[in-house]
Amino acid sequence: MVKIGILGYGNLGKGVEAAIKKNSDMELAAVYTRRDPATLTINTEGVPVKSTADLDTGKEDIDVLVICGGSATDLPAMTPKYAALYNVIDSFDTHANVPVHFANVDKASKAAGKVGVISCGWDPGMFSLNRVYAHSVLPDGKDYTFWGKGVSQGHSDAVRRLEGVLDARQYTVPVPAALEAVRNGENPELSTRQKHTRECFVVAEEGADLARIENEIKTMPNYFSDYDTTVTFITAEEMKANHSGLPHGGSVIYSGESSDGTKHVIEYSLKLDSNPEFTGSVLIAYARAAARLNAEGVSGAKTVFDIAPAYLSALSGDELRAHLL
Amino acid sequence: MVKIGILGYGNLGKGVEAAIKKNSDMELAAVYTRRDPATLTINTEGVPVKSTADLDTGKEDIDVLVICGGSATDLPAMTPKYAALYNVIDSFDTHANVPVHFANVDKASKAAGKVGVISCGWDPGMFSLNRVYAHSVLPDGKDYTFWGKGVSQGHSDAVRRLEGVLDARQYTVPVPAALEAVRNGENPELSTRQKHTRECFVVAEEGADLARIENEIKTMPNYFSDYDTTVTFITAEEMKANHSGLPHGGSVIYSGESSDGTKHVIEYSLKLDSNPEFTGSVLIAYARAAARLNAEGVSGAKTVFDIAPAYLSALSGDELRAHLL
Repeated sequence: MVKIGILGYGNLGKGVEAAIKKNSDMELAAVYTRRDPATLTINTEGVPVKSTADLDTGKEDIDVLVICGGSATDLPAMTPKYAALYNVIDSFDTHANVPVHFANVDKASKAAGKVGVISCGWDPGMFSLNRVYAHSVLPDGKDYTFWGKGVSQGHSDAVRRLEGVLDARQYTVPVPAALEAVRNGENPELSTRQKHTRECFVVAEEGADLARIENEIKTMPNYFSDYDTTVTFITAEEMKANHSGLPHGGSVIYSGESSDGTKHVIEYSLKLDSNPEFTGSVLIAYARAAARLNAEGVSGAKTVFDIAPAYLSALSGDELRAHLL
Repeated sequence: MVKIGILGYGNLGKGVEAAIKKNSDMELAAVYTRRDPATLTINTEGVPVKSTADLDTGKEDIDVLVICGGSATDLPAMTPKYAALYNVIDSFDTHANVPVHFANVDKASKAAGKVGVISCGWDPGMFSLNRVYAHSVLPDGKDYTFWGKGVSQGHSDAVRRLEGVLDARQYTVPVPAALEAVRNGENPELSTRQKHTRECFVVAEEGADLARIENEIKTMPNYFSDYDTTVTFITAEEMKANHSGLPHGGSVIYSGESSDGTKHVIEYSLKLDSNPEFTGSVLIAYARAAARLNAEGVSGAKTVFDIAPAYLSALSGDELRAHLL
């Protein structure tokens, strides 16, 4: 059994917990929280909830610590810190800071003789894998990533922070004509606006100035101003009935040539009922890999690029070759 | 530069040759043939065509030998034989015999301190990878593989062998309703007949009994009797104009749950203008991996499951993390 510790019990932590239940070789050893452990009830009976302070001893009986924190401030500090004590894995997704984060985790985990897997999930993660496989097989080509239709939690939060907004849900939606052109191997040049639209569903306070809210959303820099955005005001009941899930997905589409004029299109796509549960499922597969690699004496920071697929599976090499090759 | 030898110069050998030209770190060192080398002209200027007998010395200056032979009789003998002398790679696809082939190549390549990659291409190969990734991430689920629309060379050959047939091309076509049900996550039970249809285009000899040919195709065991097959007689000119390519493709679709009722659908699909050129491109990416692994001291038989994605790419780890993660 691979003993898993979960640090952080938000949507992602619960997704990791759900994934552990689907893997008979994995067990949840403990959930670690920065809150008062007594205030937290988890979905797995008989498993202790502990304080993050307990981790600092380095003596917790876990094989891999899954760090479910935010990329902005949590993970840059937490992952290197705990990589010095345990095998760790995170879903760090601030692209520009990956080199620094990788270097920090690599240094800490190598010194400790542990494995630290960073930037794991579906993007970065499964989508990254597909970009690398496609570029490697057909170096003369171009990759496109489309996200959605799905809920962006960051964009939903940004709308929620506006004055007069009680609740909000933002869907990222790929533009059908752009998808079509890419799937046809046309290799179009696409602006941000041409690739995705953004749909916002907003519950406003009674008497709020809806025109102002709509304008503030549509002109918000970084989040919405570069997109065609629609804003629909709904009731709290409609929000609960129709927008309570966290579905997501998307496609990596690669179009390349093996010789002049001979084209190939590779597409990897995901349709996910729950973004955090799928991300948690990917983390658990790579947690298995981290435990195995470390048991073989490997240490240091790793990404999905550095780990052979067989390490993710509970099946043996013989079984994989017999049933899935 | 990685020096590649190609053994066998049919469609696949030419596909490998085309792929080498798209990879600036690879060079074609020689083509080896069982025919008289003097009778063979290849598409790369200045590269020698040699006899397979030259390989037997073990002294050829190549980093990886790409063995482009048939799975029925060529590869079971050739791959272990040359694995004892060189790093090798093949596209062995007789599923039931993979365990024996793997064991034979493993023994030979380990004894020689070489790497032998078997069963590489798109199925087995890229499709196998996607089956393993999906099963590992979502163990509670089911995979479906659809092939086509594309030319099956084996089925085309089977039709060509019938009396009165001058030429034939067989397309494997997925059944749209089956694809739709799988993409919807319905996890249907599908018979062979429900998954694919077969379309044959046949050039018959003048005066041939067309009804007999059609009946012999449709009732041919193993190849056609389990499928709904259509047979269309065309002229040699139509064959040349409309059916001279070797397009192929297909999809691996995986549908699984991360918790009860929470579904996810993962799809990997290929649309290939040229089956042999794409297969050759995959072989060349894994030939790069074989050369690198061997340079690190690794030996023995490997499949796509055993090789980390970063080994396939000409880019460094830093570059991969910066641009493709």
